[in-house]
Amino acid sequence: MTLHDDIVAMGQRALAASRQLALLSARRKNGILQSMADQLISDSPRIQQENAANMEAGRQAGLSSALLDRLQLTSARIEAMAQGLREVAALPDPVGRVIRRWTRPSGGVRPSGLQIVKRRVPIGVIGIIYESRPNVTADAAALCFKTSNAVILRGGKEATRSNSAIVQAMTTGGARKGLPADAIQFIQTHDHEAIRELVQLEGLVDLVIPRGGEALIRAVMEQTKVPVIKHYKGVCHVFVDESADPDMALAIIENAKCQRPGVCNAIEKVLIHEAIAGSFLPRMVERLQARGVELRGDEAARRIVATIKATTEEDWTAEYLGLILTIGIVPSAKAAVEHINRYSSHHSDAIIAASATAQKIFTDEVDSACVYVNASTRFTDGREFGMGAEIGISTDKLHARGPMGLEELTTYKYVIHGTGQVRK
Amino acid sequence: MTLHDDIVAMGQRALAASRQLALLSARRKNGILQSMADQLISDSPRIQQENAANMEAGRQAGLSSALLDRLQLTSARIEAMAQGLREVAALPDPVGRVIRRWTRPSGGVRPSGLQIVKRRVPIGVIGIIYESRPNVTADAAALCFKTSNAVILRGGKEATRSNSAIVQAMTTGGARKGLPADAIQFIQTHDHEAIRELVQLEGLVDLVIPRGGEALIRAVMEQTKVPVIKHYKGVCHVFVDESADPDMALAIIENAKCQRPGVCNAIEKVLIHEAIAGSFLPRMVERLQARGVELRGDEAARRIVATIKATTEEDWTAEYLGLILTIGIVPSAKAAVEHINRYSSHHSDAIIAASATAQKIFTDEVDSACVYVNASTRFTDGREFGMGAEIGISTDKLHARGPMGLEELTTYKYVIHGTGQVRK
Repeated sequence: MTLHDDIVAMGQRALAASRQLALLSARRKNGILQSMADQLISDSPRIQQENAANMEAGRQAGLSSALLDRLQLTSARIEAMAQGLREVAALPDPVGRVIRRWTRPSGGVRPSGLQIVKRRVPIGVIGIIYESRPNVTADAAALCFKTSNAVILRGGKEATRSNSAIVQAMTTGGARKGLPADAIQFIQTHDHEAIRELVQLEGLVDLVIPRGGEALIRAVMEQTKVPVIKHYKGVCHVFVDESADPDMALAIIENAKCQRPGVCNAIEKVLIHEAIAGSFLPRMVERLQARGVELRGDEAARRIVATIKATTEEDWTAEYLGLILTIGIVPSAKAAVEHINRYSSHHSDAIIAASATAQKIFTDEVDSACVYVNASTRFTDGREFGMGAEIGISTDKLHARGPMGLEELTTYKYVIHGTGQVRK
Repeated sequence: MTLHDDIVAMGQRALAASRQLALLSARRKNGILQSMADQLISDSPRIQQENAANMEAGRQAGLSSALLDRLQLTSARIEAMAQGLREVAALPDPVGRVIRRWTRPSGGVRPSGLQIVKRRVPIGVIGIIYESRPNVTADAAALCFKTSNAVILRGGKEATRSNSAIVQAMTTGGARKGLPADAIQFIQTHDHEAIRELVQLEGLVDLVIPRGGEALIRAVMEQTKVPVIKHYKGVCHVFVDESADPDMALAIIENAKCQRPGVCNAIEKVLIHEAIAGSFLPRMVERLQARGVELRGDEAARRIVATIKATTEEDWTAEYLGLILTIGIVPSAKAAVEHINRYSSHHSDAIIAASATAQKIFTDEVDSACVYVNASTRFTDGREFGMGAEIGISTDKLHARGPMGLEELTTYKYVIHGTGQVRK
């Protein structure tokens, strides 16, 4: 068998499994998830053993300590993974839910009297392509399974043995309670061609979700024949309006930049209304420099605080994922909107303002998935939004935008009941 | 300017227009649509003149009479087009509508107290690629405009002068009431490269909807870097269960096959439960042969009625768009489902059955956009569903499935109001 044949066969098995998955009741699925969680716990020693081999190879390959930390599985982390599965089991199941139900008129222009139900159904087969953290394996598989989708997982090569052990625990535990074979499949090979083969499976794979760095996602986009939901990066802004409460603005900026700078909903840019820049900017610089943040700014900012470094054009679109922040001074809320619509990654952007007018301009006109007023962009997260879990965040506009929970892993179909109606 | 530069410039102007469109009130937009309709009527002689030139060229190029009929614009057809715009004006505007509004808890595990609104917004810039009928120009432009999307239209070359005159009437009439420049743009050139350039405009064009034959849609799919919503074809089925009322089944099959055989929601296949095939099939053959339908069938069907032609494997996936029908005999509702899931285009499929069990198997398991019980598949249509209008029908599963109306031309964003919240 060639790699091509292998991946096609996986897709065909996944499609067959998806037909069975669509028929499982919520209760049955939740029992399977509980059994998967139990098995993760009882397989914990074996998973840690496999993980130790990945860790050793990672150290030899010179992975950074940050990456090694992301890779490592302790018994506490495996317990957290199992707990995650139990939480997914506890969430309401969107599959089968009626979105809308209506009856067409029996008289008038188009008198059919048909009864139409728009009903949530699984998408079918989902491919998940991700990088190093092995807990994504359990999370993604659980969310796809909960929504009755078959899933084909392709993780980072550093974590293959760990991921494989996790999948084995889930399928073994799940099978005991009736998990269909091939509902959760894992691509073992490190060959990059496997990704190309996977995203070419038009007609077998319905959706691909890549999770990882921009390079991974660009590679997927160049090769795909299958719909993809993604975000390339998070270039998030805070705009401090002239009407802002400066203390609130400082607290939000510090939180959005420093609380966890390596994530996509951390901010990379601050825009300040020129009317308050003279008083606000020096305070902000002091506060952020105390947290070790490197500050870059446009000319207007540097005229106010000389220690700010000069920006390049690239700074405005850069996702630093670290303690760097670029600062611009703008003449109005409208100008802030224009800047953000030009440079933002359309992920999460915030205004700090007391003025209802400025708030309205900002929320009406900023074309991003999540637009905040007087709050930190760090809240863009499925759990923080109350979705219960998150398969990823989309900066696309079709199907799903912003945090994607269970509902976003479903589609719908129309079921139409008649009594013999024909079209005139 | 090269063609590439031309199309990029159109995309940039469309993006700029889309920002203005997003701010227009429903009332303003409806006034613009009325003014467009008025202008279509007053430009009717000029539009007919341009159309006469297209008709003459079409005759010289040897277009079939069916195609020439689709191409022709009479003053009645132009009035119908204007009436279509007035109907779109009368529809409710989905833009700005609140999909859901909730407040996060102030206590418990994640105590943010944030107020979250999920609000419908325009998609942005939409490309429509279509074939000969010029009325699509007015319909598509009106539906995109009503939802505050900028649109770039690319019609068939046979209709360029007609389409161009329609767009000119709409933009002239619209401008009088404040239509932003570049909100509706039309690609004049016949060069096929223009389509490639258009679908490569990642970051400028948010969605492409191709409407036309399978070859057009495949060409778009091979070149696109932009999300596409489409249907390749409509291979629709009727399954006649053993519990079917035979008279109802005959009436529905005749309607779904013969009432308008050239459209995507007409049926191409009938499956019959073996328990009733012996009595039902001869009646069906008689009824359809009287309407001039050519019948093809599997061996079991041909054993019952010898005059039925033999099928090839290609027959099962063929969209005839004419008076041909392929017939299969199946042992059960479950077997019918399996056949349909294998061969259907996932557009519209129907069961004729009195049995609630058979109905449930069929509606639960057939993986198509529209699944009918005891009604003709011909009802798959935005107007028949009560959407008021239709930009197309999707057999995709992401974003929109089945008939696409105004709502499907929107996306959403989250607007989050806080009082200074930061993430712990």
